[in-house]
Amino acid sequence: MVILGIDPGYAIVGYGAICFSLNKYKTLAYGAIETEATDLFEKRIEKIYNDMIYIINKLKPDVLSIEKLYFQNNQKTAINVAQARGVILLSARLSSVPIYEYTPLQVKTAVTGYGKAKKQQVMEMTKRLLCLKKMPRLDDTADALAIAICHAQAAGSNFTYDMIKRRKDINVL
Amino acid sequence: MVILGIDPGYAIVGYGAICFSLNKYKTLAYGAIETEATDLFEKRIEKIYNDMIYIINKLKPDVLSIEKLYFQNNQKTAINVAQARGVILLSARLSSVPIYEYTPLQVKTAVTGYGKAKKQQVMEMTKRLLCLKKMPRLDDTADALAIAICHAQAAGSNFTYDMIKRRKDINVL
Repeated sequence: MVILGIDPGYAIVGYGAICFSLNKYKTLAYGAIETEATDLFEKRIEKIYNDMIYIINKLKPDVLSIEKLYFQNNQKTAINVAQARGVILLSARLSSVPIYEYTPLQVKTAVTGYGKAKKQQVMEMTKRLLCLKKMPRLDDTADALAIAICHAQAAGSNFTYDMIKRRKDINVL
Repeated sequence: MVILGIDPGYAIVGYGAICFSLNKYKTLAYGAIETEATDLFEKRIEKIYNDMIYIINKLKPDVLSIEKLYFQNNQKTAINVAQARGVILLSARLSSVPIYEYTPLQVKTAVTGYGKAKKQQVMEMTKRLLCLKKMPRLDDTADALAIAICHAQAAGSNFTYDMIKRRKDINVL
């Protein structure tokens, strides 16, 4: 099963694609879509949409795993993150990729076994589980990988057999 | 100038298209995109996106005039409205339609001359300005027409000459 994890945002959208098979992880690709603060908001979400479509076409994920939104202190930021997240959901929907959503608590619990784990602990476990030499430059990308792991844990072994049947052709990038 | 007014939402998106020329209004089309509460959220925003693209292609607006979001008491509703609004902005952007945003205060002031006008007063003035026999069935549609009027008032006569030069081919539906 190829899982595309997404940490939603409008300045930075973190993404991380992993393959989860026979209880083992393989990291396929990760990075971030970054938009210019000086651009019109609609231009920024257009870039997010186009890049998401490109990434989905390239990685052909079986599912998209994305963090649920919670309200922040800054209203303007919260609204803009939600607007960008709508565009991300649309890009998956138009590409026929099913969407799964997880709370930050679920992500922390899935990765570290502890819902109140600190950011550094989540990073460290993500790095270990994915056998990465070092963590990605941006926290948003690291978070996206953790969100992908969360879906793998949630889906568990149910998916594994199904995945083998359906996807003998997984291309690891 | 053809103005497409939008009252954003995820259950109902109100729309109203008017032509503003030589300080006169002509109502071109109005209605609502409605989505099913029982559908997946991503299916609902997909419908909003597809219908918006259809409406824009049909009406060929010069601008999209849309209400700014403000926070509501219900967090889940506010996030979902913002997510749908992101998709609406994307549909305009991908169709090369410039976007203008107005607060509810600006809309009320533009339509009635009074920022604290009650809903009924805004409705009544919208109906009069657009010479409608009766108001649309849904408040969201009536709001969308008021939002379109707001842009006409804001843009004022600056646009009128420009519009006449550029759009001798306006098709009134």
